[in-house]
Amino acid sequence: MTQLPDAFLSAAKDLLGPKGWSDDPGKLEEHTTSFRAFMKGDTPLLVMPSSTGEAAALVKLCAAHGVAITPQGGNTGLVDGGLPHGEVCVSMRRMNRVRSVDVFNNSMVVEAGAPLVTAQAAAEEVNRLFPLSLGSEGTATIGGLISTNAGGVNVLRYGMMRDLLLGMEVVLPSGEIWSGLSGLRKNNTGYDLKHLFAGAEGTLGLITAATLKLFPKVQRATAWVTVKSTGDVISLLAHMREVAGDTITSFEMIPANAVDMVIKDIDGTRDPLPSNLDWRVLMEVSFSDEAMARKTLESALESAFEKDLVQDAVIAESLSQAKAMWMVRETIPMSKRAYGNSLNQDISVPVSNIPAFMDACNARVKDALPTAGFVIFGHVGDGNLHYSVIEPPELTGLKEKAGPLTRIIYDTVMEYDGSISAEHGVGRLKRDELASIRPPAATDTMRAIKKALDPLGIMNPGRVVSV
Amino acid sequence: MTQLPDAFLSAAKDLLGPKGWSDDPGKLEEHTTSFRAFMKGDTPLLVMPSSTGEAAALVKLCAAHGVAITPQGGNTGLVDGGLPHGEVCVSMRRMNRVRSVDVFNNSMVVEAGAPLVTAQAAAEEVNRLFPLSLGSEGTATIGGLISTNAGGVNVLRYGMMRDLLLGMEVVLPSGEIWSGLSGLRKNNTGYDLKHLFAGAEGTLGLITAATLKLFPKVQRATAWVTVKSTGDVISLLAHMREVAGDTITSFEMIPANAVDMVIKDIDGTRDPLPSNLDWRVLMEVSFSDEAMARKTLESALESAFEKDLVQDAVIAESLSQAKAMWMVRETIPMSKRAYGNSLNQDISVPVSNIPAFMDACNARVKDALPTAGFVIFGHVGDGNLHYSVIEPPELTGLKEKAGPLTRIIYDTVMEYDGSISAEHGVGRLKRDELASIRPPAATDTMRAIKKALDPLGIMNPGRVVSV
Repeated sequence: MTQLPDAFLSAAKDLLGPKGWSDDPGKLEEHTTSFRAFMKGDTPLLVMPSSTGEAAALVKLCAAHGVAITPQGGNTGLVDGGLPHGEVCVSMRRMNRVRSVDVFNNSMVVEAGAPLVTAQAAAEEVNRLFPLSLGSEGTATIGGLISTNAGGVNVLRYGMMRDLLLGMEVVLPSGEIWSGLSGLRKNNTGYDLKHLFAGAEGTLGLITAATLKLFPKVQRATAWVTVKSTGDVISLLAHMREVAGDTITSFEMIPANAVDMVIKDIDGTRDPLPSNLDWRVLMEVSFSDEAMARKTLESALESAFEKDLVQDAVIAESLSQAKAMWMVRETIPMSKRAYGNSLNQDISVPVSNIPAFMDACNARVKDALPTAGFVIFGHVGDGNLHYSVIEPPELTGLKEKAGPLTRIIYDTVMEYDGSISAEHGVGRLKRDELASIRPPAATDTMRAIKKALDPLGIMNPGRVVSV
Repeated sequence: MTQLPDAFLSAAKDLLGPKGWSDDPGKLEEHTTSFRAFMKGDTPLLVMPSSTGEAAALVKLCAAHGVAITPQGGNTGLVDGGLPHGEVCVSMRRMNRVRSVDVFNNSMVVEAGAPLVTAQAAAEEVNRLFPLSLGSEGTATIGGLISTNAGGVNVLRYGMMRDLLLGMEVVLPSGEIWSGLSGLRKNNTGYDLKHLFAGAEGTLGLITAATLKLFPKVQRATAWVTVKSTGDVISLLAHMREVAGDTITSFEMIPANAVDMVIKDIDGTRDPLPSNLDWRVLMEVSFSDEAMARKTLESALESAFEKDLVQDAVIAESLSQAKAMWMVRETIPMSKRAYGNSLNQDISVPVSNIPAFMDACNARVKDALPTAGFVIFGHVGDGNLHYSVIEPPELTGLKEKAGPLTRIIYDTVMEYDGSISAEHGVGRLKRDELASIRPPAATDTMRAIKKALDPLGIMNPGRVVSV
């Protein structure tokens, strides 16, 4: 266990007050154990600043004593980026206010520790949309979502978390505060620092608040369709975008076997449209007017039928029917765990390469592990697949061959011009792998940035890039 | 005039071949004189690489000899960012190919020296849209547009140039090539370098190509409306976005006096809707289906009439009518020059602050210069105003008081939480002013980045930040 200097400890406790720190083993345990408990860290101290001023004073203290910190949001990360490993754990969850909402400017200022649902609700309250949406939205925080540049189900239309930012407030590694909470849409006044902090996983600074974009509220029409092949899935996506344009806001590919797993394991789920075909697509059209959204979806699906891209379709007749469809999609990860062992990769390839990539990768994995099954689903509109190799719990091949299988998947992803880290990030988990894959010129540039902005190496060291 | 080392000169000429360099005074003159001829630079040598390999070898040579370069695209910049001042001028215009188009992935790879119209046409050819659009699109190049993070008339819906990037190829200050031409929409594999190079005005590297996003093609419905006040303009924007959502792709505010100037000075223009009111709005609704676009625009305008936000409106009945409306908007800068003297600022404020900002700023300017007139127009949907103080040519007050008037405008912009550089960039022109306005923590961070990535200081030195 890391020993913190006494002078640092007493100054930090003084600074933060009794509610602002803890060394209670139960509390520490909670903040050093990952979501799903598959990763474990350790920390000598948990701190919970309640304001930007406190956070800045804390970082200044850390810089003075050479004490490293790991910023933490909702602790829902999957790449070991937000779990401390000896560092002081800075939980941002006490800074969870919506500071302001500007309806005419379509923007709001939200603190880093607010969960995503808080931001969504604040937008809803003024008849606007904050479009980021993903499975862990009740827990994942704005700061964590920015630091990992989160994705989710609306990226096709609204982009990633970085695309939803107008401004940012950050405590720099020196303890200085950069107040960049501009609500401006156009502001070409130098290097774009917010884009550097977004996706940096806390290695360049501690994000304390952000100015987020609001969008016009939309009404959604949701459809569940059956499709013959991955080739048809891709052609269907192109067709829908051609005839319905950017009103297509979600386009999720789901394999038949995942639907079977979900309805077997998750209470209250049912198959929206039973079929012998291998693939389903869950799609949404969004428009300011509900009738228009539905009409657009219907007419686009009709022409897709004529082109033989869709075999059968059902459109949700109510919000609860739409929710039931989404529940099937959102509970795939959970049912996969109930099914047995799995090796999960979050990858992306250019949309045009998806069918060929899947054919090649599945064949290679199957060669190496004949008992392998597959659950491959996700945000196909963004080229992002959650690629899982599965095996019943009584078999051990997957566990034994996890290393070589991961290698096979990574190599195939690279062969098809893809990325082995689509929306989950780098953390400690993929740092060295990515350093071996990335062009050396890019890694060198990242190292130079890290060294220049955090010369003491106190900001979440060892994540993203080693220096 | 800068003296280049003989060894550098002969090696550079050898490397680039007879078509790749020039020291002809006429040629140099062309590349050292700005668009509109209001700025003048100087250079000992013009080089024109024809490939990324040549560009990289050139930068390596510059690094070895400590020779500084200024990358140049279409030379349409307005902030003295792309004119050499003693540096070698690297014109990218020979690298002007569209390397590839991927329809299913909705992406294309375009070289830095291609003018924007080339990229727009390549998208059109595959029935897609590349949405960036601005007055100088026939000349401005992709590399320049990225380096200055250009804006234009479709930012409201599609964002700035940086938002339209998927990947980038850059020659780093060492002469190494970073090949980051990924077509991936999700790729969280470290710090986002493309967002660092975008808007850096060539100070961190030489952009040689980029992967650009393609969008579904849209049909447009265009309206010209008359409005009573700036307050109504802002309320109208909010209303249109509420009822027509993100189908509102352009929303340009135009003052009555600018329309008068244009129809007086520019052949072939006419006022689409003569009126005694002070303000016009030129707006567009875009949708995959033409009839639906028009219907959406009509019904949104109807409800705006009912709310008394619009006094009169005309919808273009043909593409040529729409073009005629846009011509009035696009020729405002030209007619303003014909009118007399002007002091032009490219500023932005939060949309909600526009009316109060304009009232305050106009009053202060008028106090300081009672003969001042105003032409204030632009992309109000993005909070971006082209703010011009004008005076008839026979008067001299504006020229004499240019300094104090600029100060008044800048101070008022800052008071209303705005930016003095919205879409035109920093260059040499606004570098020191911005350093005095920006939070010191931000400027320090920018300097640290510049020093870390360009330790020799050879990449367009003195632009954006001094080090």
